[in-house]
Amino acid sequence: MADHQARSGGDERPSGIPAIRWEEPPEGPVLVLLDQTRLPAEEVELVCTDASALVEAIRSLAVRGAPLLGIAGAYGVALAAARGFDVSEAARSIEEARPTAVNLSVGVRRARAAHEAELARGGDPAAAAAAALTAARTLHRQDAEASARMAAHGLALLDELLPGGGHRILTHCNTGALVSGGEGTAFAVALAAHRVGRLRRLWVDETRPLLQGARLTAYEAARNGMAYTLLTDNAAGSLFAAGEVDAVLIGADRIAADGSVANKVGSYPLAVLARHHGVPFIVVAPLTTIDPDTLDGASIEVEQRPGFEVTEVVAPQAQVTGPGGGIPVAPLGTQAYNPAFDVTPPELVTAIVTEEGAVTPVSGEALAGVCKRAREAAAG
Amino acid sequence: MADHQARSGGDERPSGIPAIRWEEPPEGPVLVLLDQTRLPAEEVELVCTDASALVEAIRSLAVRGAPLLGIAGAYGVALAAARGFDVSEAARSIEEARPTAVNLSVGVRRARAAHEAELARGGDPAAAAAAALTAARTLHRQDAEASARMAAHGLALLDELLPGGGHRILTHCNTGALVSGGEGTAFAVALAAHRVGRLRRLWVDETRPLLQGARLTAYEAARNGMAYTLLTDNAAGSLFAAGEVDAVLIGADRIAADGSVANKVGSYPLAVLARHHGVPFIVVAPLTTIDPDTLDGASIEVEQRPGFEVTEVVAPQAQVTGPGGGIPVAPLGTQAYNPAFDVTPPELVTAIVTEEGAVTPVSGEALAGVCKRAREAAAG
Repeated sequence: MADHQARSGGDERPSGIPAIRWEEPPEGPVLVLLDQTRLPAEEVELVCTDASALVEAIRSLAVRGAPLLGIAGAYGVALAAARGFDVSEAARSIEEARPTAVNLSVGVRRARAAHEAELARGGDPAAAAAAALTAARTLHRQDAEASARMAAHGLALLDELLPGGGHRILTHCNTGALVSGGEGTAFAVALAAHRVGRLRRLWVDETRPLLQGARLTAYEAARNGMAYTLLTDNAAGSLFAAGEVDAVLIGADRIAADGSVANKVGSYPLAVLARHHGVPFIVVAPLTTIDPDTLDGASIEVEQRPGFEVTEVVAPQAQVTGPGGGIPVAPLGTQAYNPAFDVTPPELVTAIVTEEGAVTPVSGEALAGVCKRAREAAAG
Repeated sequence: MADHQARSGGDERPSGIPAIRWEEPPEGPVLVLLDQTRLPAEEVELVCTDASALVEAIRSLAVRGAPLLGIAGAYGVALAAARGFDVSEAARSIEEARPTAVNLSVGVRRARAAHEAELARGGDPAAAAAAALTAARTLHRQDAEASARMAAHGLALLDELLPGGGHRILTHCNTGALVSGGEGTAFAVALAAHRVGRLRRLWVDETRPLLQGARLTAYEAARNGMAYTLLTDNAAGSLFAAGEVDAVLIGADRIAADGSVANKVGSYPLAVLARHHGVPFIVVAPLTTIDPDTLDGASIEVEQRPGFEVTEVVAPQAQVTGPGGGIPVAPLGTQAYNPAFDVTPPELVTAIVTEEGAVTPVSGEALAGVCKRAREAAAG
């Protein structure tokens, strides 16, 4: 189950409000999540004491974003183990909470493998639970390190592609500290550019239907003192046409073996616009996002989400009135098409920036190469 | 000033709820507008007794849509004349209420010219006011006729471009009976296809920021029994990629002499997607939308609207809380980029369907030709 608790620290910097943390109060370990559905109106934390509370938090998008989902999944397995629940049942339910995000599976499997290895080694349940927690903490730390390295590689790529600085970057959805053990993926690159005085403007797509850009990216940009402007997703075309976008930076939820990128719905139209206008389209994602078992874009399962996210507007301060908990904006009974993600083919992606450097041009061979080198480095 | 009055006829067909009507109660003539900002939640009419009430209704988008704005503008001049106000002052203020919509100017100027001609002819103010009203009524009737003819020409073009029927049409914003003296522009074509059983699906872009697709097009589609599905604007890319869109049909607010089309923001990205996927992109607009004095796309003045339309969600049933009258969805102080329109260059437009037939391929010469033939037909 999950409890809500208000945070007092409303004016801390984003880095001061962890999106996820593990705590061990006397009544037993808990996983504490910043409830992202309530931002920017309020900073409320969700305290999960079991896997089903985490599954609900994942489904409702209280916790979201590819890297963070992996960390949350790993901690969820550790939580089930520490509290004596059925670990394989917990792992299965968490993994199924969102089908497109490959990181979620990766995180769950990593903690579960540590748990099983300890049991196989003859460890008792407490030792196995501790092993799962160590795996989750390691993933958390590695993600923070990966974030810092992606930011450095991404900034170097921007400076190479756009000599002269003064970058005007368009981003979609939310890819900052709220989705990461560190400062995020695409947002971390923009933040790195800001810190060295080379970010002229961050254009923030509002990202319908759930407005993660308006609610979360604007919140992170404001707190970091970045020059940012919010726009409706469909206004990006006007910016491209006016020559106001130097590069598009987005994250990824899953990258197929051929380099096809599944990301928040609305990413693919930006890729087409970027190509039409000769603007670099850059994906920033940790290597865990690359799924060698998904051969190509057509093999990516795209999550279809409830229609009420479109027929109603879910606003953090709203008086709820509709069956979906939001404010109706369409006639009752309206059917909606609401894919959570879309898929961008590799030929429209200028580069994929990982913690091991930028892959450009994007191809299955190049991606396999960077994954292989990373595995060898980890083994060596 | 404007008064609100509730309509009882909530279950009438769309054609039974006029978007605009002129009435002459004993206390003096009034212009009655269906308040489109309250749809689909409630059907409320705005009763305007002077030009400033109309200007406010135009600015707040209570009355909107290119052809209807022309009709409203003409009636506004007639209203000022009938009530003894300064007609040139009224004309000027109405014309300036929305800069991009050329039809508004056309309507205002037509009624004003009739008024001035009658005065020049020695008519008294009452006769001049009657002449302005006749001009407005004529424009209203001509627009209804133009709508029927655009629908027929548009359907013929669809059948030619997409033999076999079963059209899956994507549309943006609202272009039906709510914007017209008749059944509209792009929507009228989809409705014509529906009536002959050749509309398989109407894909309705929600059209942020003001959600005219979700609120108004879905309302009109539902009332006409059409098979329709609502989507966020950024989900259109997924539909194109899945091969689910046979044609895009949109209206226009202004067409420059070279064929560049200004329409609701979000139209241009659809044109780029349509081109990328080889899907016809069809603009449906009466000849009054073509502005020979605007040479090209770069010369079109694009209205920038208030940022609160983006930073807040204006929902018809909302409990209002933000400074803009909506529900905040972004941090306070967020700056927004909010152009009302975008411009699509002629090379991305497959055809412009007018009441005089389809212009394809689109060029300045072809547009000038159809305008010339229409003038000659009107003169002869």
